[in-house]
Amino acid sequence: MTKPALSWVAADWGTTHLRLWLMAANSDVIARRESPLGMGRLTPEGYEPALLELLAGDLPDAAIPVIICGMAGARQGWVEAPYATVPCEVPSLANATQVKTDDPRLSVYILPGICQQTPPDVMRGEETQIGGFLAAEPNFDGILCLPGTHCKWVHISAREVVSFRTFMTGELFALLGEHSVLKHSIGTGWDDAAFDVAVSDALSRPAGIGAELFTLRAAQLLQDQSPDVARARLSGMLIGLELAAARPYWLGQEVVILGQEGLAKAYHTALQSQSAWCRMVSAEGTTLQGLKAAYEQLEAKT
Amino acid sequence: MTKPALSWVAADWGTTHLRLWLMAANSDVIARRESPLGMGRLTPEGYEPALLELLAGDLPDAAIPVIICGMAGARQGWVEAPYATVPCEVPSLANATQVKTDDPRLSVYILPGICQQTPPDVMRGEETQIGGFLAAEPNFDGILCLPGTHCKWVHISAREVVSFRTFMTGELFALLGEHSVLKHSIGTGWDDAAFDVAVSDALSRPAGIGAELFTLRAAQLLQDQSPDVARARLSGMLIGLELAAARPYWLGQEVVILGQEGLAKAYHTALQSQSAWCRMVSAEGTTLQGLKAAYEQLEAKT
Repeated sequence: MTKPALSWVAADWGTTHLRLWLMAANSDVIARRESPLGMGRLTPEGYEPALLELLAGDLPDAAIPVIICGMAGARQGWVEAPYATVPCEVPSLANATQVKTDDPRLSVYILPGICQQTPPDVMRGEETQIGGFLAAEPNFDGILCLPGTHCKWVHISAREVVSFRTFMTGELFALLGEHSVLKHSIGTGWDDAAFDVAVSDALSRPAGIGAELFTLRAAQLLQDQSPDVARARLSGMLIGLELAAARPYWLGQEVVILGQEGLAKAYHTALQSQSAWCRMVSAEGTTLQGLKAAYEQLEAKT
Repeated sequence: MTKPALSWVAADWGTTHLRLWLMAANSDVIARRESPLGMGRLTPEGYEPALLELLAGDLPDAAIPVIICGMAGARQGWVEAPYATVPCEVPSLANATQVKTDDPRLSVYILPGICQQTPPDVMRGEETQIGGFLAAEPNFDGILCLPGTHCKWVHISAREVVSFRTFMTGELFALLGEHSVLKHSIGTGWDDAAFDVAVSDALSRPAGIGAELFTLRAAQLLQDQSPDVARARLSGMLIGLELAAARPYWLGQEVVILGQEGLAKAYHTALQSQSAWCRMVSAEGTTLQGLKAAYEQLEAKT
């Protein structure tokens, strides 16, 4: 069996990593490659060489499409791909920014992110995950929750992104757990009951978090609270605070959490404790699905 | 005029610094010295040499008292000085832990911190500031607010610490402003109006902070929000959240903010916007005043 010919390249170019997939004409994945040359480590001149380094030896002579989502399209990225504004469909190739390259074998498209003016909010990359999810469930009408460093809550209706909000919950958890005085009290394990109580407390008294955080330290000093309990409590406080603010999104709506492991499960548990109507859908491959959907538009066009 | 003889030593031994004062018999300050050898950089064996290094050449032959407050008395410090438990008077020499030294010229006392079991909370160092304040205003009955990395709200009645709460507001401000994605959007200046609005918003919708934080980034990307406005807004959000949780402390009580500059003024402005009854008292020298009060007890005893 001969190796299928490289037909196009899908790329998720984030702040810390470049992930790309070498794709056959039928959109089978030929190979997956990764580089730590994310936006944070590149000037605009560095993008084309970074791409060529991962593709070296595989490029045919004729130009092939390279479809990119993520921070490569930010103002401080390769070339700015201006945001689409809500309410809008998930950005497609029709809104993509074409990038001129020195190497004639590359035909580069950067997909735009989505912005919202009131309240101000932005996403870059998640819109492609949403596109991948909608490719599988085109009639979905409800709320998507995308947990992560910056969790996004997204209202989808009639294939449009209607509105969204970003929560820095994951970043706060990492900062407090690894860089604050609480790091001395926080372990790597988990405690379900402590998580549940913390979620419920934060939902009923969200202001309390200001005072509750330091009890994670004091309870260890005075009451030998276990580091695993402390970690679950911190997560519960922060996710509970998020759910309190995101209530208009999830209350009485169908919520799909994109993700299956760890963090997504914690959101699922927390939402279920509030009797929210939610299910988890694997986020595995949704970005690639979204990039494939964009490629198919290109194919349809040509 | 001859230099007065060294009679005793006052020391504030924190996590990051050792600050000490060489004192005359009448408690005039002969000299002030500082070292970066805080608790964070010392093992128990390192404390006596660190002290001797700063006092070298000044010690008389007879033993003199060295009165220490702060993290030197923590479990991971020099010798653990067990906490006093609320409700209690500000810890004095009667509760101090005497430390055996190799050098006979030192007679070391470490003052304890204060703890509270419900909700769990601890302080080490602030109790001596409180002692200094009460030495000047012995009949104060009300609330002390001590802004800082970890802001303490302390209920004082009949010379006792009745209860207290710790808020990690200063540490959150530093982590978010310097180590999160918001660092790209946050400057070094200030904007009074933006601070006021953020305090008021956080007080009326404390849960909202989960979603509001990321608007600091998005408003810069989409609406060219100035970095000074962003910094004042972040401070206002966090202090507003703190005031929302600390309401039972300040509502209808006399509040004294220990401190005059920057952060203390921000708290003063925020509390005044809520028509709270508050005034600022300089924190300058309160720790030394507290250590002096402890020394006078020793003098009275001997």
